[in-house]
Amino acid sequence: MADSHLSREIQEQPAVLQTVLEREMEAVCSLAEQLRQRAPRAAPRYIVLAARGSSDNAARYGQYLLGAFNGFTAALATPSLYTLYRRPPSLVDALVIGVSQSGQSPDIVSVIAEGRSQGALTVAITNDTNSPLAQAAQTTLNLNAGPEYSLAATKTYTSSLMILAMLSAAWAGDSERLAALQRVPQWAAAVLEDLPRVLKIAERYRYMQACVVTGRGFNYATAFEIALKLKELTYTMAEPYSSADFQHGPVAIVEQGFPVLAVLPEGAAAPDMLAFLKSLQAREPELLVISSLDEALALAQSPLPLPAGIPEWLSPLLAILPGQMFALGLTLARGYDPDHPRGLRKVTLTR
Amino acid sequence: MADSHLSREIQEQPAVLQTVLEREMEAVCSLAEQLRQRAPRAAPRYIVLAARGSSDNAARYGQYLLGAFNGFTAALATPSLYTLYRRPPSLVDALVIGVSQSGQSPDIVSVIAEGRSQGALTVAITNDTNSPLAQAAQTTLNLNAGPEYSLAATKTYTSSLMILAMLSAAWAGDSERLAALQRVPQWAAAVLEDLPRVLKIAERYRYMQACVVTGRGFNYATAFEIALKLKELTYTMAEPYSSADFQHGPVAIVEQGFPVLAVLPEGAAAPDMLAFLKSLQAREPELLVISSLDEALALAQSPLPLPAGIPEWLSPLLAILPGQMFALGLTLARGYDPDHPRGLRKVTLTR
Repeated sequence: MADSHLSREIQEQPAVLQTVLEREMEAVCSLAEQLRQRAPRAAPRYIVLAARGSSDNAARYGQYLLGAFNGFTAALATPSLYTLYRRPPSLVDALVIGVSQSGQSPDIVSVIAEGRSQGALTVAITNDTNSPLAQAAQTTLNLNAGPEYSLAATKTYTSSLMILAMLSAAWAGDSERLAALQRVPQWAAAVLEDLPRVLKIAERYRYMQACVVTGRGFNYATAFEIALKLKELTYTMAEPYSSADFQHGPVAIVEQGFPVLAVLPEGAAAPDMLAFLKSLQAREPELLVISSLDEALALAQSPLPLPAGIPEWLSPLLAILPGQMFALGLTLARGYDPDHPRGLRKVTLTR
Repeated sequence: MADSHLSREIQEQPAVLQTVLEREMEAVCSLAEQLRQRAPRAAPRYIVLAARGSSDNAARYGQYLLGAFNGFTAALATPSLYTLYRRPPSLVDALVIGVSQSGQSPDIVSVIAEGRSQGALTVAITNDTNSPLAQAAQTTLNLNAGPEYSLAATKTYTSSLMILAMLSAAWAGDSERLAALQRVPQWAAAVLEDLPRVLKIAERYRYMQACVVTGRGFNYATAFEIALKLKELTYTMAEPYSSADFQHGPVAIVEQGFPVLAVLPEGAAAPDMLAFLKSLQAREPELLVISSLDEALALAQSPLPLPAGIPEWLSPLLAILPGQMFALGLTLARGYDPDHPRGLRKVTLTR
């Protein structure tokens, strides 16, 4: 079980990230060029991201990235308006992006198809360039992740983030950010070196029934994705929260020993996240902290360090890795099969 | 404790809904008229909803409502782009709506202030028409809920839904939907008659540690709001899910006896929700079902019936009520103080 697909695919990520950078940059730059050259009246006014599961968490990263660096409000689509209710909103002024590793989910395909029929620009981000999603969209960006055998998505998630990061930087014509992307594979390799230690740490949580995963801004997505891995692989009630929303009520569930996993890379969100963790101290929670900041790591029973110097906008590509390793470790500690979580299918056909 | 603020405010809702219908219809219709009369080039192209906590759940209802009946993509705002990152996206083409009972949250005020400074149309939906949020927006719609003493929001939540429903119907100039709104207070009174029975049902869940709350489409918001009440009042790990997202992985946590609360009013989402509950049966969950459909109620260990004939787009105003009553019942069954949940403040100043 230690030699599972899941374990291999987690460790393949530096190579996959390198591949997608090399193979997909041209397609991304050509799309970026097309977007920049649109006449002002035909240019998109906002962005709609359609996705489910891990891909929806990638879309959440896109929401912050395309907002912060490209100036667009990005909405996560509400697929049931397109399917169950057959009342799709107007998309004429939108750039519509569908994210799906399999490219099969009928509800995500519906959003793209509707956007295209209304004359919107449509983009598919998928690991299968022959999938219905790829066929529905005008432009397809390939995750280049190779076959993903594990039912829990790992390398297709980080590859989706990379494609979105490439698109954001290329669209803005930001050569500094494009250059920073090249460092991600080596940072990822450095984080993954910690695998044996993280697997050991996970044993402490063998009997954890519930936890909260918290992150803010760019890493709100990371909190969602770590919580999803813990739920689908280890059946833990893991709930994702922005630290801001958490303080509006749910903080009540934290009592002595309650586990809180905080994603806290350096950057603009760090001071607030740190203040939030300190405010929790009176409740004596059990803290797991993913960070490059000594002050944050020092608060944790289980520190999960990141390399220093990662720009915050790229940190979600790295901060997810300790979360994936921890979920793998907890799966193994509980004697579960990492490749066959109960109740999970690779392609889920929701409408 | 049975005579708590929370209990009283839950039962005040039919009267509050009646009041907001009477007192705020004129202001809503005048805003609707203003929106309809905008020249096409100055008309909003999409909507941004900014809110936290229960108000964010109301915003989620707005997302479906304004999409389905008014043809707009509505995005939930990402406040940290405006505050922590100081990189607000363009809002020139947006209608920006802030929802906050207190009108105090600095991050929500920031989104409205930014929208206004960019020249967007801005609307505040709040229970305090002198609040910073009301001052920041061009137009204010008053929740008319009277003082809410309970820390857990109930009547300001349903009043927020009502304002959004009134705005959607008035903006579309839909007299049939405007007429349907008038029936909501009496339906609400009918649902609340079930209070003694629901308080009794809650005892069965005295030792429930975790549960999932599921709903889809219009009632995705209801699932979020019920889960939030359970977390803030009863410290249960209650996680909201769309049935579609749930099937993409997290379904793995459902084992024999695991509690699933399903929100399943009649309408377009019902057949899929029903099929989903049936697909869960093999896992032998404990089902609580809020529905007017006999077939759905028959699946439940704890049926929570709604009156028949409620249009689906209005069902979130009614389907939340059994959830609120259940949360109150569980609070009492556990001997907690409904008016002073630990760690909750009425006004949360996040940025």
